[in-house]
Amino acid sequence: MKQSQLFTKTQRNAPKDESSVNAQLLIRAGFADKLMAGVYTLLPLGLRVMKKIENIIREEMNAIGGQELFMPSLQPKENWLKTGRWDAMDDLYKVKDKSDREFALGPTHEEIIVPLAKKFVNSYKDLPFAAYQFQNKFRMELRAKSGILRGREFMMKDSYSFHLNEEDLDNYYEKAKTAYFNIFDRAGIKDQTYLTFASGGTFSKYSHEYQTATPAGEDIIYICGKCSLAINKEIKPEVETCPECQGKDFREEKAIEVGNIFKLGTKYSAPFDLSVKDEKGEKKTLVMGCYGIGLGRLMGTVAEVYHDNRGLIWPESVAPFAVHILSLNKNAEAEKLYNELMGKGIEVLYDDREASAGEKFADADLIGIPCQLIVSDKNMKENEVEIKNRKTGEKSFVKFSAAEIIKNLNEKK
Amino acid sequence: MKQSQLFTKTQRNAPKDESSVNAQLLIRAGFADKLMAGVYTLLPLGLRVMKKIENIIREEMNAIGGQELFMPSLQPKENWLKTGRWDAMDDLYKVKDKSDREFALGPTHEEIIVPLAKKFVNSYKDLPFAAYQFQNKFRMELRAKSGILRGREFMMKDSYSFHLNEEDLDNYYEKAKTAYFNIFDRAGIKDQTYLTFASGGTFSKYSHEYQTATPAGEDIIYICGKCSLAINKEIKPEVETCPECQGKDFREEKAIEVGNIFKLGTKYSAPFDLSVKDEKGEKKTLVMGCYGIGLGRLMGTVAEVYHDNRGLIWPESVAPFAVHILSLNKNAEAEKLYNELMGKGIEVLYDDREASAGEKFADADLIGIPCQLIVSDKNMKENEVEIKNRKTGEKSFVKFSAAEIIKNLNEKK
Repeated sequence: MKQSQLFTKTQRNAPKDESSVNAQLLIRAGFADKLMAGVYTLLPLGLRVMKKIENIIREEMNAIGGQELFMPSLQPKENWLKTGRWDAMDDLYKVKDKSDREFALGPTHEEIIVPLAKKFVNSYKDLPFAAYQFQNKFRMELRAKSGILRGREFMMKDSYSFHLNEEDLDNYYEKAKTAYFNIFDRAGIKDQTYLTFASGGTFSKYSHEYQTATPAGEDIIYICGKCSLAINKEIKPEVETCPECQGKDFREEKAIEVGNIFKLGTKYSAPFDLSVKDEKGEKKTLVMGCYGIGLGRLMGTVAEVYHDNRGLIWPESVAPFAVHILSLNKNAEAEKLYNELMGKGIEVLYDDREASAGEKFADADLIGIPCQLIVSDKNMKENEVEIKNRKTGEKSFVKFSAAEIIKNLNEKK
Repeated sequence: MKQSQLFTKTQRNAPKDESSVNAQLLIRAGFADKLMAGVYTLLPLGLRVMKKIENIIREEMNAIGGQELFMPSLQPKENWLKTGRWDAMDDLYKVKDKSDREFALGPTHEEIIVPLAKKFVNSYKDLPFAAYQFQNKFRMELRAKSGILRGREFMMKDSYSFHLNEEDLDNYYEKAKTAYFNIFDRAGIKDQTYLTFASGGTFSKYSHEYQTATPAGEDIIYICGKCSLAINKEIKPEVETCPECQGKDFREEKAIEVGNIFKLGTKYSAPFDLSVKDEKGEKKTLVMGCYGIGLGRLMGTVAEVYHDNRGLIWPESVAPFAVHILSLNKNAEAEKLYNELMGKGIEVLYDDREASAGEKFADADLIGIPCQLIVSDKNMKENEVEIKNRKTGEKSFVKFSAAEIIKNLNEKK
C-alpha cells in the first residue's frame, strides 16, 4: 500500500485522555481511534494486525478440531434467565424492542451455544466436539481503562467444547493448553506468558489464565522460580506451594491476562438439559469447557511488550506489513522496488509521501514495521538499498534488487 | 473436512416457522440456525459461504481503492443527535449504561466515520478516499421475515467515500457501480441482477439499488426491455420512460435488493463540519457517497436463485467446499483420495459417516456442493471415481487419481 493513499496519519502527541502506553502508541501511529471510553475503531493498520492475530488463532483452533461458526449478539432474555445470569451478571447490556421485549447484548455465548448443541447432539457418538467464533462482545465496564486492554466492546475468540465425561474434557483441555501456547508463541509473547492458576468458579476449584508479564499489567502474578507456573494474586493466600512442582520460591510480576480456559462442568448444560445416553443407556449431562482470547487485548499486549521510545516494534507474524519502503526523493526507483516486492507476494507499505527524511524515519519507527528499506540518492549511487531492522537498529546494504532483498530477509529469519 | 466430525446435521423437514425457501434450505442443510425472528447463527457450512462472499467483496473494494477498517457497534448518542437520526430513525436500538448514559447500536456508520474522517482530513490533498468495513448491524425490524434476507442483526459491508466536489463523487460512484457488478458476477447472480433506480433521499433525486429477480423478492421492479435498467415500483409512477435509453417497454419482476449505492452529498458531512480549503483557499464541505451490501442477504439470494427440489446448488465461487466425496463403504480408498485432494489445495467435504448410500446422496444434494465424487465398490472395480455435477446431474467416470480428477474439474470450468 502506498502511504500517500492511507487516509489515517500519525500524530505527534499522545492523546491526553489515554494513560496506557498501548493506547498512546496505537492511536499516535494510526492503528486505533478512540470513539469513547472502552470503545475503539480499528483503523486500516490496526485491522491488518488483528487479521494476522485472527488467522493465527484460527489455524491453532482448527488444529485441535475446532469448528468455526458465528453466533448473534442479540440474545433472548429467556436463555439468560435459564442460567440465572440475566440478574446475576453485573455487566450485561440489556436492549429493548418497541414491544418492550428484552434482549441481552452478548458478553459471552454459553446461553446460545448450549441450546444450539442440543439441536444436533443426539447420541454419545456425536461427542466430543468443539466450536469457536470471532465475535464482538459487549460488557458494561463502568471504568473502562488500560487502553484497548479492557473495553466495553471488544473482539474475542471464544470456544466451547462438549464432552461425555470429565476424562474427555481433561483430554481436550490439555490440547487447548498447548494450542494457546502455540498462539502466544506465534504472536511473539511466549517468553513473557505464563500459565497461571486463578479462581475457578463452580466446577473446578481453579481455572487457568495466560498472563503476560509487563509493567502495564493490571493483575499481579507469582511465578514459580522452579517450573514457571504462575499463581494469580487473588488465590495466592490459599496456594502457598506450586501446584505443579511444590516449589516455594516465587517472584512477583505485573501481568496482563491474554487468555483464559475454564472447565465449566455441567454449569450451563444442566439448565438446558443438554444430555445424551451413554453406551450403557444411562443419561449423562454433557461436560463443557470454554476457552477465550481477546484479540484487541492481545494486540495491546504485544504493543506493551514490543515498543521503545520511538514507537511500536511488531513481531513479523503480526506486523501490518512485512516491509516499509522509505523513498527519500527517489520515487521512481522506490516504486519499481515496491511493485517487484508486491509481485513476489511481500506485503509492503511504501512511503511515497512528499515529506522530509526525518519525518519519514520518525513515522516508520512509530508504526513499527519490522524491516525498513531506504531508497535514497546516496544508496542509489552504489545501486544499493539500505535495510534497517526496526528492532535492533542493525543496518545492512544489499544490491538494489527485489530478489537480493528477499534473500536477505529470509536469511535473517 | 470429514462430515462425521461436523457437529451440525441435515434435517429432513423444513422448520415450521420459516416460509422462505432460503431459510428453509439453509436451516435444513445446516448452514444457519434461527435463534429468534430475524436473528440467525451462521453454522460452520454457512460461515464458509459468508467468508467466500466476504473475500470477493473485499477484493473488489480494494480494487477501487477502499481501505478496510472496523468501527464499533456502541455509538455515542451525541453523534446521532447531531445528524437528527437519534429521534428520526425508527428502527434504532438504544442501549443504556448503568449511569443511564445512552448509546445507539449501530444500524449504519455515517455518524462514526464522518467525525473520524474529520480527524485526518486536513487538506484537499487528502481527498478523495474511501473506507469500508464488514460489520454486524442492528435494526429493530418489527416483523423480521423472508428468512435471512431481512434481519434484526445482519452482516453488512458498508463503504463511505469522501470527495472535494460532486464531479469527483460522480467519478467514484461509477467505479463503485462496476465493482458491484463484478461482485454479483463473481457470486453467480449477475444475469439476474439489475441496476435499479430507486428513491433517493435528500441529495440526489434517485439512488441506485441492485435488484436480483427471483419469485422470492419482496420488491417489485420494472425492467427496461431495451437496455435492462430497472426502476423500483416505488418511483415508477414518476418515471415513465427509461432514464437510460428512453425505452417505454418494461416487464415486471419480483426482486431482492442485494445492494444499494447512494450519493449523500453533504447530508452527514455538514452537521459535523467536515470541510477543507480547496486550491483557491475556499472552504468546501466534503461530498460523500455510501455503498452497502448485506452479506447474509446475498447468501440468501444465491440460495433463492440456485436450488431445486432436492436442495441447494452453490456456484463454485461461494460454495462451502469445492468437492464432496461420498464414500459408499469404501472409506480406506475415499480417505486416500480426500488426503490427496486436500494436499493439492482443494477444499473437500468428505462423507465418511456410517450411513446408507441413499442418505448420503440426499444429504449431498441438500448441501449443494458443486461437484460430488462417488467412491463405491462398483466404481473401484474399474479403478474409477464417479464425478457428478450437482447442477446438471451430469455424470462422468475418471481414473481413481487426484490428478485426473483435478484435470477433469478444470476442464469443466
